[in-house]
Amino acid sequence: MSPRQEPAPGGPSALRAAIARQEVTGPTAGLCPGYAQANLVILPREWAFDFLLFGLRNRQACPILEVLDPGVPHTQAMARGADLRDTLPRYRLWQNGELVDEPLDIKHLWRDDLVSFLLGCSFSFDDALVAAGLPVRHQEMGRNVPMYCTSLPAAPAGRLSGPLVVSMRPMAPEMVEHARRVSGAFGEAHGEPVHSGDPAEIGIADIGRPDYGDAVTINPGEVPVFWACGVTPQAAVAASKVEMAITHAPGHMFITDLRAEDLAGSSLISCAA
Amino acid sequence: MSPRQEPAPGGPSALRAAIARQEVTGPTAGLCPGYAQANLVILPREWAFDFLLFGLRNRQACPILEVLDPGVPHTQAMARGADLRDTLPRYRLWQNGELVDEPLDIKHLWRDDLVSFLLGCSFSFDDALVAAGLPVRHQEMGRNVPMYCTSLPAAPAGRLSGPLVVSMRPMAPEMVEHARRVSGAFGEAHGEPVHSGDPAEIGIADIGRPDYGDAVTINPGEVPVFWACGVTPQAAVAASKVEMAITHAPGHMFITDLRAEDLAGSSLISCAA
Repeated sequence: MSPRQEPAPGGPSALRAAIARQEVTGPTAGLCPGYAQANLVILPREWAFDFLLFGLRNRQACPILEVLDPGVPHTQAMARGADLRDTLPRYRLWQNGELVDEPLDIKHLWRDDLVSFLLGCSFSFDDALVAAGLPVRHQEMGRNVPMYCTSLPAAPAGRLSGPLVVSMRPMAPEMVEHARRVSGAFGEAHGEPVHSGDPAEIGIADIGRPDYGDAVTINPGEVPVFWACGVTPQAAVAASKVEMAITHAPGHMFITDLRAEDLAGSSLISCAA
Repeated sequence: MSPRQEPAPGGPSALRAAIARQEVTGPTAGLCPGYAQANLVILPREWAFDFLLFGLRNRQACPILEVLDPGVPHTQAMARGADLRDTLPRYRLWQNGELVDEPLDIKHLWRDDLVSFLLGCSFSFDDALVAAGLPVRHQEMGRNVPMYCTSLPAAPAGRLSGPLVVSMRPMAPEMVEHARRVSGAFGEAHGEPVHSGDPAEIGIADIGRPDYGDAVTINPGEVPVFWACGVTPQAAVAASKVEMAITHAPGHMFITDLRAEDLAGSSLISCAA
């Protein structure tokens, strides 16, 4: 279970600087309220077409915010000039589909053929849920959001395939429609829930044991509500035995300079060079 | 100058069958009114990531409608099961950036590593312009639309770069705002014009000599109106000296099963496998 981090003063760039100094190494849920957060996937150029197509075919799980040219580690559209190699609190290194390390930066792993993708993240709408009076249990408990592999397949692309991964927020049944409307406005941050109610219907055997992140309390009378999750690419990297990949550690996101409401709407934000 | 083809009875699938029998070999402007038409780009997998990113970074010129897996020549989303290797009236074969052939089918050129992209086409909104009482001169004259390379650069992606290519429709100056509104609704078919008036402002030296397609008459008092064009990838293939590429011949498009109005709106239609 990961401790809650206090937000750094000074906004996203100050927080990214603190992360780069490794002063902040935990999950980013609730940090820099109001700013969009992003999932990170880095793959060799050899896998980049398959992954970009995978993202386009699984837009609810993998809403593509920015794609960088091979070898370029600095974002333009999401936070001009930020170095993706040390401005996330924790990374995951994958080799042949196996998780082999969780480093705090990836400068030593960088190669000229690596392509970086930033994807929308559900933390972007958590603040909107809170503002709407809806519960965001992992924020209340100071934990990472619980995430689960499902029995729903993601749409395959080339050599990439795997299950849809979902994040979960429990709430009273009568709140679900409201949550659907609030999150549905965030078209580039997973949008509407994909399921609510019985976890077994989407292949989740034990709601108390998430595959990623932390378990949260489901109060009596509440139902779990599930959203497509940007960890879906990590499940595909594992299932497809990709030779080498780097991702964010689940819940340890890239904090962008965009306001969360900038990800409302349904069109691709940017693929700027 | 290409002769006007009469529309085949029986809708898009009958027309595609006639094209596959090589009974229809000319430009497709005005054929199957009401149905969306599409640009085709086929590249080796080695270039597919650069091109997909080029398309995403140049969405007005290259609105991506469908991307097929490597080696798959049959569309799903745009016309289920249609074989892209013989259902366009004419193709272009490019080697090292040079145009080397304009075959009527490409079955003999097919390879397992080829990736096909279908992009939105301005012919999709020509019918809407006509319905709005606006002139579509190339249709009136039974010619291919005139297209020009401009001095405006397309956004580069990886190894791909080149100029923006535009199509042109002349009309009275007081009609331009109306045309902007009508075409602007076709978000996946180039949308609003990128320029109207003096061609020299976007680097077109001689409006009477298009780089692709046919010249059309500009009546006294009319201004040329320019839209981003799906031939832009062909200019990038040439400028970037791509080893091998296959495209449609300009104006000789893929006729889809989608209604043109299905391309209205601003979101990506499909990247279905």
